[in-house]
Amino acid sequence: MTRLVCRPLAPVVGDLAGNQRRVLETLATLSTAGADVIVLPELVTSGYVFTSQREAASCALAADGPELAQWSAALTGDTVAVAGFAERAPDGRLFNSAALVDAGGVRAVHRKAHLWDREKLFFAPGSHPAPVVETAFGRLAVMICYDLEFPEYTRQAALAGADMLAVPVNWPLVPRPTGERPPEVVIGQAAARVNRMVVACCDRVGTERGQEWTEGTTVIGADGWVLASGGPGSAEDGVWADVDLTAGRAKALTEHADLFADRRPDLYGA
Amino acid sequence: MTRLVCRPLAPVVGDLAGNQRRVLETLATLSTAGADVIVLPELVTSGYVFTSQREAASCALAADGPELAQWSAALTGDTVAVAGFAERAPDGRLFNSAALVDAGGVRAVHRKAHLWDREKLFFAPGSHPAPVVETAFGRLAVMICYDLEFPEYTRQAALAGADMLAVPVNWPLVPRPTGERPPEVVIGQAAARVNRMVVACCDRVGTERGQEWTEGTTVIGADGWVLASGGPGSAEDGVWADVDLTAGRAKALTEHADLFADRRPDLYGA
Repeated sequence: MTRLVCRPLAPVVGDLAGNQRRVLETLATLSTAGADVIVLPELVTSGYVFTSQREAASCALAADGPELAQWSAALTGDTVAVAGFAERAPDGRLFNSAALVDAGGVRAVHRKAHLWDREKLFFAPGSHPAPVVETAFGRLAVMICYDLEFPEYTRQAALAGADMLAVPVNWPLVPRPTGERPPEVVIGQAAARVNRMVVACCDRVGTERGQEWTEGTTVIGADGWVLASGGPGSAEDGVWADVDLTAGRAKALTEHADLFADRRPDLYGA
Repeated sequence: MTRLVCRPLAPVVGDLAGNQRRVLETLATLSTAGADVIVLPELVTSGYVFTSQREAASCALAADGPELAQWSAALTGDTVAVAGFAERAPDGRLFNSAALVDAGGVRAVHRKAHLWDREKLFFAPGSHPAPVVETAFGRLAVMICYDLEFPEYTRQAALAGADMLAVPVNWPLVPRPTGERPPEVVIGQAAARVNRMVVACCDRVGTERGQEWTEGTTVIGADGWVLASGGPGSAEDGVWADVDLTAGRAKALTEHADLFADRRPDLYGA
């Protein structure tokens, strides 16, 4: 079994040094505590509610800079971590990105392909499928927040062999009926079940410039059911789940039914 | 507002005459009672648990035969009905099909494109996208049961302009955690929300040759939340919901977010 943990944090917008310090402390603590896979929120080094592109740029990082190297150095053993950051590309463009790192370094960087709402004012969109990285625990795909709500994109990662989606998110609070899970979780459950793929979403906490967050951190099993979740105030120690990440590789459901073989790409082109 | 009703029935396998009689009574009663759109279960004229292709063939209908013309004749006013039947094609092949009919006749026939499990022993798969039919109440797409579990296929119907998916189903009962909705409903909720499209699933009832059914009839709004559902024993009068079928046509969620415009077909090919 793989020990997953999603650890909500409350980044402070623009406080790159303080946010980075909290990320490093968190990664070191969780890695030492036995986490195999750690997922942190979207834009965890920068905060989210920017007022200008200039402000976003002021707390952006190079993917090959010292900060992500420090993430790697904070990890011990085989622990893998996925976390979001504002990325400054060599050509000066900004991306809403997430890196997958282990003690050996940065293994992959994903640039959010589906930018939500005002993110379009600050960031350029990514232009690649979600990366799928072979790790000591299984194949992890990285996507960010709104990316999860495009079933074409989650399917693509599954077809590329992902055992799990690691999804840093910042879910702005939206209305939902009493007793219901956040709508993004329902979408994640469906993505998990139709692909037999674990989905781990790590949301942020803490109000930022008046924006409230769903605080909907959730780990979903490959059968689509919620394994663990942490509502507001309950995620101080992180949301932990022990999961067999490779159990979903068999896509056969019965003797004659198979989630992938039953697809009809002849009808829908992909 | 459009008055939708899903009416579970318990077809008797092989009893074509009796099943057809119950379908006609149901259509006439619901149409007279003010239903605008009626959805009945999958294979409602034939039953489901066949022991041989020969048995399936014995209760198959031609799409242009007298039985579907009788469905049409049972409807009054603008009422539209969708129901499943075993179809015998002119070339002799059998399909798991559903027809959309109104008082003017058969408007469309859908042949299930994703055959579940042992259905593959009895039926040929359909080879077309779900039909999308302009009706007096909005644009209705027709798909059947397992078709709903392929997000490429539901997306395709949404992009073709569907306001609603009418989904006759026969959901074999599968385990689920206490308090959870059937997994197929969760998948339907996600399909509704990511596409802003109403989803109405009409399940069958009644054990057949030892097979139990989920009895999970559910109407889901374009925001992904369940509007009405009927568990075991509660669906005698049908599951009714008043829905604005065209409200989901606007795919914009905020000033800068739009569910369709935000798609990245450049990345996933469709």
